[in-house]
Amino acid sequence: MSFHVDSETGRLRRVILHRPGLELKRLTPTNKDELLFDDVLWVKRAQQEHDIFASLLSSRGVEVRLLGDLLGESLEIPAARTLVLGRVFDEREYGPLATDALRQVFEGLSGAELAEALVGGMTKREYVERHPVPDSIRLHVMELDEFLLQPLPNHLFARDASAWVYDGVTVNAMRWPARQRESVHFEAIYRHHPLFAAEGDAFHHWSEPHGAHPSTIEGGDVLVIGRGAVLVGMSERTTPQAVELLARRLFAAGSAHTIVALDLPKRRAFMHLDTVLTMVDGETFTQYAGLGMLRSYTITPGTGGRELSVTDNPPEHMHRAIAESLGLGKIRVLTATQDLHAAEREQWDDGCNVLAVEPGVVVAYERTVTSNTELRRNGVEVLEIPGSELGRGRGGPRCMSCPIERDPSA
Amino acid sequence: MSFHVDSETGRLRRVILHRPGLELKRLTPTNKDELLFDDVLWVKRAQQEHDIFASLLSSRGVEVRLLGDLLGESLEIPAARTLVLGRVFDEREYGPLATDALRQVFEGLSGAELAEALVGGMTKREYVERHPVPDSIRLHVMELDEFLLQPLPNHLFARDASAWVYDGVTVNAMRWPARQRESVHFEAIYRHHPLFAAEGDAFHHWSEPHGAHPSTIEGGDVLVIGRGAVLVGMSERTTPQAVELLARRLFAAGSAHTIVALDLPKRRAFMHLDTVLTMVDGETFTQYAGLGMLRSYTITPGTGGRELSVTDNPPEHMHRAIAESLGLGKIRVLTATQDLHAAEREQWDDGCNVLAVEPGVVVAYERTVTSNTELRRNGVEVLEIPGSELGRGRGGPRCMSCPIERDPSA
Amino acid sequence: MSFHVDSETGRLRRVILHRPGLELKRLTPTNKDELLFDDVLWVKRAQQEHDIFASLLSSRGVEVRLLGDLLGESLEIPAARTLVLGRVFDEREYGPLATDALRQVFEGLSGAELAEALVGGMTKREYVERHPVPDSIRLHVMELDEFLLQPLPNHLFARDASAWVYDGVTVNAMRWPARQRESVHFEAIYRHHPLFAAEGDAFHHWSEPHGAHPSTIEGGDVLVIGRGAVLVGMSERTTPQAVELLARRLFAAGSAHTIVALDLPKRRAFMHLDTVLTMVDGETFTQYAGLGMLRSYTITPGTGGRELSVTDNPPEHMHRAIAESLGLGKIRVLTATQDLHAAEREQWDDGCNVLAVEPGVVVAYERTVTSNTELRRNGVEVLEIPGSELGRGRGGPRCMSCPIERDPSA
Amino acid sequence: MSFHVDSETGRLRRVILHRPGLELKRLTPTNKDELLFDDVLWVKRAQQEHDIFASLLSSRGVEVRLLGDLLGESLEIPAARTLVLGRVFDEREYGPLATDALRQVFEGLSGAELAEALVGGMTKREYVERHPVPDSIRLHVMELDEFLLQPLPNHLFARDASAWVYDGVTVNAMRWPARQRESVHFEAIYRHHPLFAAEGDAFHHWSEPHGAHPSTIEGGDVLVIGRGAVLVGMSERTTPQAVELLARRLFAAGSAHTIVALDLPKRRAFMHLDTVLTMVDGETFTQYAGLGMLRSYTITPGTGGRELSVTDNPPEHMHRAIAESLGLGKIRVLTATQDLHAAEREQWDDGCNVLAVEPGVVVAYERTVTSNTELRRNGVEVLEIPGSELGRGRGGPRCMSCPIERDPSA
Repeated sequence: MSFHVDSETGRLRRVILHRPGLELKRLTPTNKDELLFDDVLWVKRAQQEHDIFASLLSSRGVEVRLLGDLLGESLEIPAARTLVLGRVFDEREYGPLATDALRQVFEGLSGAELAEALVGGMTKREYVERHPVPDSIRLHVMELDEFLLQPLPNHLFARDASAWVYDGVTVNAMRWPARQRESVHFEAIYRHHPLFAAEGDAFHHWSEPHGAHPSTIEGGDVLVIGRGAVLVGMSERTTPQAVELLARRLFAAGSAHTIVALDLPKRRAFMHLDTVLTMVDGETFTQYAGLGMLRSYTITPGTGGRELSVTDNPPEHMHRAIAESLGLGKIRVLTATQDLHAAEREQWDDGCNVLAVEPGVVVAYERTVTSNTELRRNGVEVLEIPGSELGRGRGGPRCMSCPIERDPSA
Repeated sequence: MSFHVDSETGRLRRVILHRPGLELKRLTPTNKDELLFDDVLWVKRAQQEHDIFASLLSSRGVEVRLLGDLLGESLEIPAARTLVLGRVFDEREYGPLATDALRQVFEGLSGAELAEALVGGMTKREYVERHPVPDSIRLHVMELDEFLLQPLPNHLFARDASAWVYDGVTVNAMRWPARQRESVHFEAIYRHHPLFAAEGDAFHHWSEPHGAHPSTIEGGDVLVIGRGAVLVGMSERTTPQAVELLARRLFAAGSAHTIVALDLPKRRAFMHLDTVLTMVDGETFTQYAGLGMLRSYTITPGTGGRELSVTDNPPEHMHRAIAESLGLGKIRVLTATQDLHAAEREQWDDGCNVLAVEPGVVVAYERTVTSNTELRRNGVEVLEIPGSELGRGRGGPRCMSCPIERDPSA
Repeated sequence: MSFHVDSETGRLRRVILHRPGLELKRLTPTNKDELLFDDVLWVKRAQQEHDIFASLLSSRGVEVRLLGDLLGESLEIPAARTLVLGRVFDEREYGPLATDALRQVFEGLSGAELAEALVGGMTKREYVERHPVPDSIRLHVMELDEFLLQPLPNHLFARDASAWVYDGVTVNAMRWPARQRESVHFEAIYRHHPLFAAEGDAFHHWSEPHGAHPSTIEGGDVLVIGRGAVLVGMSERTTPQAVELLARRLFAAGSAHTIVALDLPKRRAFMHLDTVLTMVDGETFTQYAGLGMLRSYTITPGTGGRELSVTDNPPEHMHRAIAESLGLGKIRVLTATQDLHAAEREQWDDGCNVLAVEPGVVVAYERTVTSNTELRRNGVEVLEIPGSELGRGRGGPRCMSCPIERDPSA
Repeated sequence: MSFHVDSETGRLRRVILHRPGLELKRLTPTNKDELLFDDVLWVKRAQQEHDIFASLLSSRGVEVRLLGDLLGESLEIPAARTLVLGRVFDEREYGPLATDALRQVFEGLSGAELAEALVGGMTKREYVERHPVPDSIRLHVMELDEFLLQPLPNHLFARDASAWVYDGVTVNAMRWPARQRESVHFEAIYRHHPLFAAEGDAFHHWSEPHGAHPSTIEGGDVLVIGRGAVLVGMSERTTPQAVELLARRLFAAGSAHTIVALDLPKRRAFMHLDTVLTMVDGETFTQYAGLGMLRSYTITPGTGGRELSVTDNPPEHMHRAIAESLGLGKIRVLTATQDLHAAEREQWDDGCNVLAVEPGVVVAYERTVTSNTELRRNGVEVLEIPGSELGRGRGGPRCMSCPIERDPSA
C-alpha cells in the first residue's frame, strides 16, 4: 500500500514531523531574522509542546515519523549519503582548498551523527575542537562563532520542503537561502529510505530535478483540496512558473484535473496560503478576515495543441472558482467576526493554520481562542495544543506536519 | 512611615505592578514595533503569568499595589483628573475643533472607567459607537480602526516611568512617544492618591517639572545600589544631561553622595541597564557576558564653587568605580559561562533582569535556565516565574516592578 | 508698503533665499538620511547653481534677500540674540553643567559669526580648538567629530520654516528634529530685523507661540492660491490640527475666507504638496501624473456658534473644490503624458516644483525636460536653472524660495 | 597581437566602455535601490558626461570600444545569439508556457535591436504593444509597467562583469540579481565577436563555466598590480572561494605568481576594492583615509603536494604584503589629509576611483577636489571629467572602464 494524500481533511494515516532540537538553540536576536524566525525559543519547552502535538496525533490513530530518524536512517545508505554530501559540500560554497577535506570529515560520521550535524549546524569553533582545519582562505576569514554549516531551524515546519499531492510528491526548491538545504534531506528520504524505496515506482515525483529560484514552490502554499483539484497560493515564495510546471506534471500523469492558483499579497503576514486559508472538511474552509477576495486562475489540461488552458477569475469569483474545481455548487467559508486588530493578531498566531485529522476534526493552537470558538460554533471539533514557543516562527499545526498518507475526504 | 527605596536587594516591602489588560490586546503585527514590542501576546495567559508573579511577591511578604487601581482611585480626585486630562487633551494633539469636546466626554467617566480608557486606549470606532463626534478635520481623516487614544502596553514595565531613589521619586520624561503618556499617571498617583498624599512632604520629588527629550531618564537605567550611591546607565533612553539633573537634586537634598554613570552601547538589546546588570545582594551583581567593560563617570558634589565634580573612569575600572561608590574594596560579579550564541539568547530573555525580594533571593523567569543555574551555583536563591508571554516585550521581573518601599541591603 | 503674499503667481517682488554654505559640507553618506538629504552635494557647484537662480530672479526684477545676511544682521540686536540663544542653549539639550558656559562663548561672537555657526553647525573638535571645555558628562561622552551644534542643511529650502499667507506670516513648528532649529531664525528676523520691525504691526503673525509636533505645518504644504483662498496639503509633515489652527487665525483676521485641505499620501515622495502640485498662473496648476485625485476638506468660518465649518469632498471633487474656493467655474490642470516610470522620475527631480515670477512665467530645473516641455506646449514661459547638485535634497525652485512680497495674480 | 592587461597604470591601449542609454531611463525612486543605484540620473546629461570621458581617452591614444556595438555585432553570430538567448529565456524564469514563445519573438530581432532590448530591458506594456502575448500565468499576473526583461543599468560600470588579468580574462559570476545577466553579454563578445574570436587561443579564460553565488568575483575588486602579482579585495561581492579558484587557474597557466587578498569591510561604502584603493603608477597607490589597515592573505603556488600556499598577514603588514608581492622594498601610499566628514564625502564621490592612462596620469571626477589636489601635490597628472550624473551609481572612471589591452607599468 503506497503513499498518497488525497485530500486536506480525510482521515490522516501517516505524517512526518520534526522534533525541535539543536538547530533552534542556534537562534539568537542577531541571526533570527536571516533564519526567518521572529523570536528566539525556549527549546526545552518547545520540545514539550511538540511532544504534546505528536502524542495527540498518535492518540487519533496517526502514525508519526520523525524527520530526524528518517534522515539518520537514510544516511546509512551510501547513495543517500552521496546525494546529500554532494549537495552540501559544493566548491562554490567552501572553495577548492577546503571542500574535499570537509566532506571527508563528515563522511566519517554515522548516519545519526550526520543527520544531527546537517540539521543542527556546526560552528567553526565546534569543528576545530574536533577536526583538523584545512588551509583555506574561506576558513581563515571566518570568526570562531560563525557557522561552518548553517543550522536549519525551519525544518520544524515540515510541510514546506516537500508536499504530497495525490499519488506523488514534490520536493521543493525553496525561496530563501535559510531553507534551501532542507530539500535534499527529503529527497534522500523519499529516494533511498527503505520505507519509501520499498514502494519503488508506486508514487510519482512531481518536481523538476533542477528547480531553483525564481521557480520555487513551498508546501504551505499547496492545498490538496480533493476530487482531483489542487489549490495553490502564489506568494512571495511560490511563483507562477513553478505552478505551471506542477500542473504540467500532474495533468500528464492524470493525477489531477484542475489547479486553482490564487494571487496572494506578497507580504510576510501572508507567507503561505495555509497561514490564511485551510480546510476543515471536504467543503468547508476557515479563512482569515483580512484576506479579502483575490484574483485567481483556473488551470486545466489544454486542448487543440495547447498544453494547458488558463482562465482568469476576477476577485469576486474566488470562492466560486474553488467550488467549481471541486464540482460543488458552493463551498462554506468560516471567518470569525472580530475587529481588525483582533483578527490580525489571531492570524499572526496561526489561527487559520489548522490541521485536520479527519473531516470536521482539526488541531489548532490553544491561544487562538476566537478562531477556535468560531470553528466550534460551526460544528467543528477543535483539538488544542500549546504553542507559546512553537509559534514564534509563525507556523501552526498544518505548517509543522507533512502528511504522507491521507484518505479522500468523503 | 514613608516611602523610600534604600537599595536594590534589601527586604522589599511595597511594590507597584501593572496587571496586563486591554492595552496588550491592542498589539498587532502591524503596530507592535511602534509600540516597542517584539511580538503580540496571548493576554489571558500573560495575565495568568503575571498573577503568579504577584502571588509570589505576596507570599514573600511584599505588599503589591496595582497601577490600575491606584490610577482609578486617583482619578476620582478632581486635581488628579485635571492634571491628567489637561496633559492628554492638548490642542496640539487633537486640534482646536475637537479637543474640548473630547475632553468633555472623558470628564464624564468614573475614575475606574477613565483609567481603563487611558491605559487601554480607544479606537475611533469605539468612540463613535458611544459618543457624538465633534466636527473636526483631525477626526475626519482618521480611519475607524485608528486609535483616538493610543494604548499604553508598556505600563507592564512599571519600573520605567517613575523610579524611587532613596527618600524621593523621579517621575520620568520618557524617550519614545509610545510611553510618554505613562508618566502623568504616576505623577497623578504620587501627587494626589491618598496613600501618597497622606505622606505630604515626607518624600522628595527629584524630577524636573518640564522634562522632555533630549533630557530623558527611565527607571530601568537607575539602580539604587545602596550606601548613598546610585548606578545609572546612559543608554538610548537615558541621557547624560538627565543624569546631571538628577545628581543636582539628589546631592542638594543630601540623599545621595555619588552617582556612577555607565556609557552603555546605544542598542535595543541593551535597552536599559537592568537588562544587562542587576544586583542579587548588597555587593553582588549578575552581569551579561556580552556586556564587556564600559567607560564610566563618577559624579560627586562639587567643590570650590563648582556644582558637581565629574571623574572619568576608563573601561577597565568599571567594577572598581562601582565598588568605590559603595565604599567597598571590591564587588562580586556573576556571569554564566556559555557560548556567545547562548549568552545572547539568555540576555534577550531577560536572564539578567532579576528582582531581589531580600538579599540573596531573586525572582527570575524560568526560561533563563543557564543564568538561573549560575546564580544558584553561587548561593543565590532563585524563585522562578513563567514568562512565555510576559517576556515578549523584552522585560523581566525587575522591569515589571516599581518598588516604593525597600530596606537597605544589610 | 508692507510685506504680503497675495497669490502663487502674481508678480514676485521680494524673496528670501539661502545660499548654500558650510552646512552642506557637513553632509556625509552616514548622516545624510538623518539630515533629510538623499545624497551629498558638491558645495562649490551647488553655490554656482544657486547664484544662477538668484541672478535669474534679480534679472526679472525680484529683490533677493539672503537668509544668512538677514540672520547675521538680526543677531546684532540684543533681543534677537536673546531669543535665538535662549532657544538653542536649553538645559534639556546641554545639561546643567555645560549650558551656560556654552552660551557664554557664543554670546561673544559677532552677528555674522554667530549666524555662520548656527547654520553651519560646529563639531566638538572645532569647539575645543578655540574654546575652553566645561566639565560636563554631556560633553565628555561626545566623540571629537560629533556635532556640538547640528548643522542646518535644509535652510536651503527656505520655503518651509516660515510661510507668508496674504498679510501675515506663519513661523512653523517643523516635523523633524533636523529642521526644528530653523524656525527661530525666521522668528528672530521677522520680529527684530529692521526691515521687518519697521513695519511694526502692518502684518500678522499667524503661528501659535508654542507650536510643536504633533501640530506641525511646513511652508511647502501651503499654497496661497489667491482670491482669499488657501490650499494646504496634509502630509507627513503638516497635520490636520495645525491646519485648523491656521484657519482659526486667518478667518479671525479676515485675511482669508476658505482653506481647502488635501489629504496627501504620507510618503517621502509626496513630502510636501508643492512637490506634486504648484500653480503657473491664476487658474492653472501643474500636477504630477502619479498624484491621482485626493479626498479634500473645505474649511470656512463657522455659523451658528460653531467656530469653523468643515465640508468633506470626495476624491473626484478635488479640482472642483479648489475651483470653488477661488470662485471659478473650473481650474486648468496640466499633467505631462508619459509612462509611469518617466513620470515618477520627473516628480522625484521636482518637475512640478516650479516658482512663478509672474503669471505664466515660471522657474524650473533644466533636467525635468518632459514637464518643462508640457508647460511650454501650454503657453507657459519656463526659465531653466541647473540643479545637478541643488536637487539632491529633493527640492526645486519653489522649495528654495520664501516670497515675502507678491502681488495678486490678476 | 593579442589582448592582455599587464598592469594598472601602464599605457592603456584599448578599453571597453558602455555609453548610458535606455537602461538608465528605467531607474525610478521606487526601483533604484533594487537596481543598486542611489539616485535617478538625467540620462541626456549622463551621456554628455560619458562622451567627454570617452573623448578624453581617445585624445590620449586609447582605442575605445562601446559595449553596445560589440554586443550587437556579436548577436549577429548564431552561436552568440544561442548562448545569450539560452541563458535569458530559462523556463525557471518564464515558465513552461511562455518561455519558447518569448524567445521566438526575440530571435526575430536584428543584433542591434536585440542588444538594445537586452540592456535596456522591456516592460510588459512595450511587449504587448508589438507582439502576441502567450497564454501563461507568469505573464497574466504581471502589471503592464512591470519589466518583462529587466534593464541592466549597471552595465555602465563596465569594469565588473569581466576582468582581464595578464593574458586572460575572467567573466564573472555577479553577486546581485540586478547584475547577473551582464556576464553572458561579455561571454558572447569574448567567445564570438570577430575581434576576439580572431585571436583564437591567444588568451586564457580564467573563469569557471558555472560560477554562481556564493562563489562570486567582480572586476572592481581585482587590481592587476603588475610584475606577476594581483591584488584582490574580498568584499560583499567577492568571496574567498572565488579568489581561490582564480588563483588555481592563474598559477596553473603561469600567468601570475602571487595573489594578495584583502579582507574588506562588508559595507556598501566599500563596495569594491577600487572604490577605496587604486594605483597611480607602478609603485604608488591612492587610498581612502577611512580604510585603515586590513588583514590580508598572500597566496602562492603550493609546494609538497598542496595546491596553494596561504600566508596570513596581520593588518599592520598590509602595505608590506603588497610591496613584497611586487618584489619592491615598499610602496608609496597617498592619502589626502582632511577631516573625517570630508574624507567620507570624497570617497563616496569616488575620489579614489581613478583610471590611469599611463604611469602618473590618471582620470578622475572634477568634484573630488581635495583628492585630486593631493594627487597633484605628489606629482600625478589628473585629468578631470564631469560626474554630476554618472557618479550617482557610486562608480568613477575606473569602474566605468574595462581595459582589454594595457602595457606593463615600467
